Amino acid sequence: MRIKIVIEYDGADFYGWQRQPNFRTVQGEIEKTLKFLTKKETPIEGSGRTDAGVHAFGQVASFEWNGPIPVDKLMYVLNHHTPDDIYIVKLEVVEDDFHARFSAIGKCYTYKLYRSERPSPLRRKHAYYVANTFDMVEVSKAIDHLIGEHDFKAFMASGGHVIDTTRIIYKIDVEYYEDEIHFHYYGNGFLYNMIRILTGLLVDIGVGKKKQSDVPGIIASKDRSLVKHTAAAEGLYLREVYYSKVDVNNALRIAETQ
Amino acid sequence: MRIKIVIEYDGADFYGWQRQPNFRTVQGEIEKTLKFLTKKETPIEGSGRTDAGVHAFGQVASFEWNGPIPVDKLMYVLNHHTPDDIYIVKLEVVEDDFHARFSAIGKCYTYKLYRSERPSPLRRKHAYYVANTFDMVEVSKAIDHLIGEHDFKAFMASGGHVIDTTRIIYKIDVEYYEDEIHFHYYGNGFLYNMIRILTGLLVDIGVGKKKQSDVPGIIASKDRSLVKHTAAAEGLYLREVYYSKVDVNNALRIAETQ
Repeated sequence: MRIKIVIEYDGADFYGWQRQPNFRTVQGEIEKTLKFLTKKETPIEGSGRTDAGVHAFGQVASFEWNGPIPVDKLMYVLNHHTPDDIYIVKLEVVEDDFHARFSAIGKCYTYKLYRSERPSPLRRKHAYYVANTFDMVEVSKAIDHLIGEHDFKAFMASGGHVIDTTRIIYKIDVEYYEDEIHFHYYGNGFLYNMIRILTGLLVDIGVGKKKQSDVPGIIASKDRSLVKHTAAAEGLYLREVYYSKVDVNNALRIAETQ
Repeated sequence: MRIKIVIEYDGADFYGWQRQPNFRTVQGEIEKTLKFLTKKETPIEGSGRTDAGVHAFGQVASFEWNGPIPVDKLMYVLNHHTPDDIYIVKLEVVEDDFHARFSAIGKCYTYKLYRSERPSPLRRKHAYYVANTFDMVEVSKAIDHLIGEHDFKAFMASGGHVIDTTRIIYKIDVEYYEDEIHFHYYGNGFLYNMIRILTGLLVDIGVGKKKQSDVPGIIASKDRSLVKHTAAAEGLYLREVYYSKVDVNNALRIAETQ
């Protein structure tokens, strides 16, 4: 039967999501546990890769299960055997044609900044540091330029292999917690490193290195060399993956009312 | 000349504060940097030890300095050479008789809990997990019993070597952040593991394993076997160290108005 799992992980001690020989990865650790339980290879597919240092509140993966543990016990057993920096938050049986990556129709990523006079040891692996003078008025205007359907080619790192670089950003929500600023990016999909490059641009605007009025020109240019700043992996969280219009609309509505 | 430094650190990757051969410690890393700069041993003394996994916003240390770097550049140079999980927040020249430990007259520790249905990978190294049903009404009453001057012998772990186990807790402040509960303990000093044992008791009361009305009897018993639960090191932060009555009073007044 087909299983969908939702996973929280702390990316600090992983070489990213994707399995790699000789490196500790999230996919690798979960597959190791499944192999331990089934005594055979049980590959899982994620909704997408996350880079080394990137976190997740709600990564999604799918796999075929006909192992020896009943489904209603499987989440408990998996959490017992996976390491502390991974937790399966939800497990359910899904349609046979469900695929964590190909069935996804949207995602939400969160990027966390903190404003400070100095870097903070206690936050260095979970947020990205910006100066106290960070100008959110300019940044809010920049965000308005990003919303909607655009060719985001300028915001794709080399290593991205897609041909169609058009994406829709439904919404970028900003939340404030004490000295932290959280950007929640909702879209139908994101190019390789797109969120980190978008955030790098917003940071450059916030500290005055670029202007909000530059944004439409940068998008139109499709030229990566105009946006060289890739915000650190440590601030990035894969928050949610959506598999239906209803899921997307609910997420946007909840964001609206918060 | 005599130097006082205030240090933030992330305790996750340290075997505590105190220098140990073959183990990475905060004191060890700072002394290594000082030795690198001066080419000779430059021992520092901390306000007290913190255990493996315990963090600090404001640990204090003192040392003799007659090295080759001017004092007004020293903080910058130290931060350049110490690892990322240590940051010197403040550096100043103090009286010759200043000693980070012996001159201290009070401290504030923060203990962070988070309420959840499940443990969270993203918080496991920086807070301690309690059930959603955690009862803060009972806990608040328990806190009232702890305030003031008491013989806290029941709350000292083995390994503590003091003879006089009487301490004054000035105040225990409670702050709420979303699903987190932070206890700020202000006192004239704390016994070995005292904050973690106090918090273990508060947690037991919050989840219904003990009652707030048990607290006076536990204090009076001076019997450690009645409070066996030591809350995890990961939730504990050394927040501030005080060296004058004015410092203490200011801290308490600020806490009052928050």
